[in-house]
Amino acid sequence: MTGKQYSHEDVLALCARLEKTYTPAVADALDELGFMNQSMECGFVSILPDAVVAGPAYTIEEAKTRKSTKLHEYNPEFVAQALSAVFGNMKKGQVIAVSTNGFWGAGAFGELMATTSKYIGGVKAAVVDGPIRDIRRTIEIGFPVWAKGNIPTDSIGRTDLVNVGAPIFCGGVKVNPGDIIFADRDGVIVIPVQDADLEEVVGKAEEIVAAEKRSRQEIRNGMSLLDVYKKYGKL
Amino acid sequence: MTGKQYSHEDVLALCARLEKTYTPAVADALDELGFMNQSMECGFVSILPDAVVAGPAYTIEEAKTRKSTKLHEYNPEFVAQALSAVFGNMKKGQVIAVSTNGFWGAGAFGELMATTSKYIGGVKAAVVDGPIRDIRRTIEIGFPVWAKGNIPTDSIGRTDLVNVGAPIFCGGVKVNPGDIIFADRDGVIVIPVQDADLEEVVGKAEEIVAAEKRSRQEIRNGMSLLDVYKKYGKL
Amino acid sequence: MTGKQYSHEDVLALCARLEKTYTPAVADALDELGFMNQSMECGFVSILPDAVVAGPAYTIEEAKTRKSTKLHEYNPEFVAQALSAVFGNMKKGQVIAVSTNGFWGAGAFGELMATTSKYIGGVKAAVVDGPIRDIRRTIEIGFPVWAKGNIPTDSIGRTDLVNVGAPIFCGGVKVNPGDIIFADRDGVIVIPVQDADLEEVVGKAEEIVAAEKRSRQEIRNGMSLLDVYKKYGKL
Amino acid sequence: MTGKQYSHEDVLALCARLEKTYTPAVADALDELGFMNQSMECGFVSILPDAVVAGPAYTIEEAKTRKSTKLHEYNPEFVAQALSAVFGNMKKGQVIAVSTNGFWGAGAFGELMATTSKYIGGVKAAVVDGPIRDIRRTIEIGFPVWAKGNIPTDSIGRTDLVNVGAPIFCGGVKVNPGDIIFADRDGVIVIPVQDADLEEVVGKAEEIVAAEKRSRQEIRNGMSLLDVYKKYGKL
Amino acid sequence: MTGKQYSHEDVLALCARLEKTYTPAVADALDELGFMNQSMECGFVSILPDAVVAGPAYTIEEAKTRKSTKLHEYNPEFVAQALSAVFGNMKKGQVIAVSTNGFWGAGAFGELMATTSKYIGGVKAAVVDGPIRDIRRTIEIGFPVWAKGNIPTDSIGRTDLVNVGAPIFCGGVKVNPGDIIFADRDGVIVIPVQDADLEEVVGKAEEIVAAEKRSRQEIRNGMSLLDVYKKYGKL
Amino acid sequence: MTGKQYSHEDVLALCARLEKTYTPAVADALDELGFMNQSMECGFVSILPDAVVAGPAYTIEEAKTRKSTKLHEYNPEFVAQALSAVFGNMKKGQVIAVSTNGFWGAGAFGELMATTSKYIGGVKAAVVDGPIRDIRRTIEIGFPVWAKGNIPTDSIGRTDLVNVGAPIFCGGVKVNPGDIIFADRDGVIVIPVQDADLEEVVGKAEEIVAAEKRSRQEIRNGMSLLDVYKKYGKL
Repeated sequence: MTGKQYSHEDVLALCARLEKTYTPAVADALDELGFMNQSMECGFVSILPDAVVAGPAYTIEEAKTRKSTKLHEYNPEFVAQALSAVFGNMKKGQVIAVSTNGFWGAGAFGELMATTSKYIGGVKAAVVDGPIRDIRRTIEIGFPVWAKGNIPTDSIGRTDLVNVGAPIFCGGVKVNPGDIIFADRDGVIVIPVQDADLEEVVGKAEEIVAAEKRSRQEIRNGMSLLDVYKKYGKL
Repeated sequence: MTGKQYSHEDVLALCARLEKTYTPAVADALDELGFMNQSMECGFVSILPDAVVAGPAYTIEEAKTRKSTKLHEYNPEFVAQALSAVFGNMKKGQVIAVSTNGFWGAGAFGELMATTSKYIGGVKAAVVDGPIRDIRRTIEIGFPVWAKGNIPTDSIGRTDLVNVGAPIFCGGVKVNPGDIIFADRDGVIVIPVQDADLEEVVGKAEEIVAAEKRSRQEIRNGMSLLDVYKKYGKL
Repeated sequence: MTGKQYSHEDVLALCARLEKTYTPAVADALDELGFMNQSMECGFVSILPDAVVAGPAYTIEEAKTRKSTKLHEYNPEFVAQALSAVFGNMKKGQVIAVSTNGFWGAGAFGELMATTSKYIGGVKAAVVDGPIRDIRRTIEIGFPVWAKGNIPTDSIGRTDLVNVGAPIFCGGVKVNPGDIIFADRDGVIVIPVQDADLEEVVGKAEEIVAAEKRSRQEIRNGMSLLDVYKKYGKL
Repeated sequence: MTGKQYSHEDVLALCARLEKTYTPAVADALDELGFMNQSMECGFVSILPDAVVAGPAYTIEEAKTRKSTKLHEYNPEFVAQALSAVFGNMKKGQVIAVSTNGFWGAGAFGELMATTSKYIGGVKAAVVDGPIRDIRRTIEIGFPVWAKGNIPTDSIGRTDLVNVGAPIFCGGVKVNPGDIIFADRDGVIVIPVQDADLEEVVGKAEEIVAAEKRSRQEIRNGMSLLDVYKKYGKL
Repeated sequence: MTGKQYSHEDVLALCARLEKTYTPAVADALDELGFMNQSMECGFVSILPDAVVAGPAYTIEEAKTRKSTKLHEYNPEFVAQALSAVFGNMKKGQVIAVSTNGFWGAGAFGELMATTSKYIGGVKAAVVDGPIRDIRRTIEIGFPVWAKGNIPTDSIGRTDLVNVGAPIFCGGVKVNPGDIIFADRDGVIVIPVQDADLEEVVGKAEEIVAAEKRSRQEIRNGMSLLDVYKKYGKL
Repeated sequence: MTGKQYSHEDVLALCARLEKTYTPAVADALDELGFMNQSMECGFVSILPDAVVAGPAYTIEEAKTRKSTKLHEYNPEFVAQALSAVFGNMKKGQVIAVSTNGFWGAGAFGELMATTSKYIGGVKAAVVDGPIRDIRRTIEIGFPVWAKGNIPTDSIGRTDLVNVGAPIFCGGVKVNPGDIIFADRDGVIVIPVQDADLEEVVGKAEEIVAAEKRSRQEIRNGMSLLDVYKKYGKL
């Protein structure tokens, strides 16, 4: 474990800086540091197309159910425990990451979860490796969700809660709780904070943004990409 | 056959009530009644993203062609018969459901069909288990189509008309003519009116909407999801 | 080779006429001429949903890299050559077509390419058989790209440049340099100008647009599709 | 309907002649007659790799269940009816064709069905557009099944019986009851006997086999494919 | 946790009884007990087609690498630890289950692992949710592997070891260490021993095998499936 | 271009040495030399499961047809040219590699091509990135073909010949004419002879085979994999 530890406040401040960059710049910064597999695979699209969100990961692992239990068949104690497990430890500024273990038969995230996560937990967004439901109402509360599709079907009776707060794989990338999730129109990036120094990543991303801005301006002023490369040694 | 029979007018009135709910509420209502497979699979998206439509199904079954006949090679009698088969029996307020039997090589629905269905048949929308074309012009006449993608290619010479008004499978769900199709941003639901009482389904969906509204309000007022559950016995 | 040769100016003028039609009309015109496989497969969507673009193809072939070389490991001469190969021969009004040979692990097109292509090369748009990145910034410069998805990942170190200006397959269709690419909301069409007369294709497409406009008007005035067919012998 | 009608005995005799040819020869014969879409798509493999079977289709349509009823919950009358529907009308020499309407969650055919079909119904084989189970025991009774994969899961409680003896789509091809199914190592062909004359198809296939045998012999004797083509006008 | 605990010897004895049954019988037994999702999805095939193996799960979780480290770049201590983690706790009679977290770019299991697992660890077989390599040499040592395909590529530098001996998802099913894996020609079943009594499952499976044998015999003696059902109340 | 040039005889001798190794050893050798993407993707299986073949690539590029021309509609001159293009330049010991550009609607290789390639051209095998037909008869002449599936459908009228003897992509890997194709039970490897020294690759592969043999023997004698690693510094 080589990443530096930051307080929750410092992490949120670094996330605010990240949100002024864009995911390709962070992907390139992580490439430079040797982390080549931190972009979630193609297919994640936000229900709010202009959303840009960075925050520490709050991980939820789901899977196709073993026993198809209906809500009313559950012991209320069990439901209370499950709700407390899912929602009891959320922190302001987090981003939920959901693994479905490949199950596409139900909405893996919906509006009541979004409302609770936002209004009770202070969570900023969710990234879901599967389909979601309640899209219109989730848009209405301004809670961005990156997901792979839409389906009206309930998860109750179809999905088991496997883990909360444990490492998951989402979009082909390992997400440890507390890793930084950064998502925008281009997709979703995971910054592995146990192995990389978050401040260094943010700084590098900011430099890349500045360099690209400069290159873009030169090109729009008529300089060829080749001359940009010769002048600055990079693109 | 256990579903109650309603007049076309009563069906349309119930559909108007459905359109004030949302597909996840209807999916949950059907779950409660034991119908667990009434949501079309992930992948259906409307060309008019805010459209919400419910109506009795008008079914069309297509398939990859056997003989690649061009339009001008057809006997005009045959064309007349086909057009009459497709468009002759449409009723006001219906929703077209199209099966392509897995054929993706041509647009399974286009603007002339949309225009005719809307202006001559009084049809409200279409749900197409495959790609469509003429999207811009179909948007212009305000005719919502839920489909799986877009392609410019003509169906003539590539697609055979297999059946009109017979049961089909669309999005993995059986659609009998007259079943209620309900579609919104979350996808498409089929209410099997031969086996379920439409009025009961609508009533249950309305109750679910009311309960979720109440829960949402409590949460936004600061109540935890657990306390909501304890207070009302449901989420 | 049976297609007629036109000057670059004449081609651009024909493309301007094409942009007043729509891709299904061109697909039908090509069908009539016996070219049955000129529509790219379902899955190409523009980042600017209302864009309509026609222009001669500028082809780029990419593939998953053999050697994972990082940008800074390249010899500057090599980079200069590559940039000159990619951008040195662009002409006003062209449309870039990119084959990735099935590689989905990196963005096959991004904003610096878009900016250079537009501001230096005068290129109008790009069609990419794979995922892209920098979508927000590419939208901001008003450069339409039809692609299959989004991913933040860089192509440097992941993708090799295979060819520029050679025939490629894109979306299942052969694209020769100079073939006309026509793309709109319904997808992407390729007009094979070595085998088909571009002016004839454009003329046929215009006739189809006119006939469909007439049919649409008749239907909106209450004529059945059957009567339209009887009156005009076509739909 | 242009196909000639033959007695069941004549059909079986023609099927015996077919089994001396091979599916590509029949595919080519159907191509010559204008039936271009009679081969089931890639993916059908026989559990008995050397099996070669032709016979009239006995069609079964299945789908993902609506209500998940367990066997013991069924009324015995209902089970009796279902069994009689499935097995009551089998004829010697038939080939079962099963559509699953895209459901992959259970074995769509198993050993008790195979045993009954073979020993009671005189059926020769089955073609299943989905996964099967009981493969080892089905091999042991020498009953060939072409299928798309294997899964141990029971269909009871997961699959509904939709139709028996009605037209289905299987492997992308329409199969009417009585159409001839011909399957070997290369896959599965459907001869549409309502539209094509079975004897003509068989005759053409035999000619193709003879011509290919002759070409093969010439090539093995050292003649180039070009010279074969020049000598016989075909390959 | 409701499953009964058995000694390793008793488990192996129960596994020996399982190997005299077949996976569909166990799938049916688990269905009866309410475990509806214990069959791995379609796609698992053994390199030794006649193999039938049951044993307690030894779980390995892999994923696409983060850092592409080559073998010679690793610290020998690290390699020693990794080898000890993978191979240090194997027990006689176990079956390895490998999750790749969806990574298909390298062989997830090969012959040196097979040889060590068999000759040092006493392991009986492996089930791999991805592609494998060294198939010929793994066949030669008589070590059955169920996998989804073949690829020559090395996992070193492409794959990270995520966990050994922790719960995984494999073929869509949760596998806890010690769960019983049972695999044959029809695929792979997981018996969840924390929730189900292994002896009860084995007993039920044996009853199902006996009942099916009886039914099969009656059918081969000419009794209809309907009469079998009437006589025994089951199929 | 850094690869050494060898005479055709020397290449065949090196291929004979390759055939005594196995594809994973060659994949590892190429990894060591920095060529990380030389294994064709998962999915290539030989119709002769025990075949092991190495030889210089003879490349053929096919694609879905533009014009659906039937054989009898072709000008005999055109057919003569095409046959001469395909078969006129084959050399003893070559391995055919076929790209279909993603077209799965017809058999991309069949028995007459196999017979001609073998008996006239001296070709040893074929690798086909798509489905094939005539499998039984191709097995009978002992001509191994690695392919992705089986279909009875003819390529005439469905497939265009795009190129012979030009670079192609096959299974995700670039194949230049003359590159060495090496295929066995684990799949297919391409050795890029313009960039890598074939003799060096063969030598490295032989060393890897020898080292693995030694490790395997030590393990079977009871040494742990860890001790093997400590003793030899590799696995």
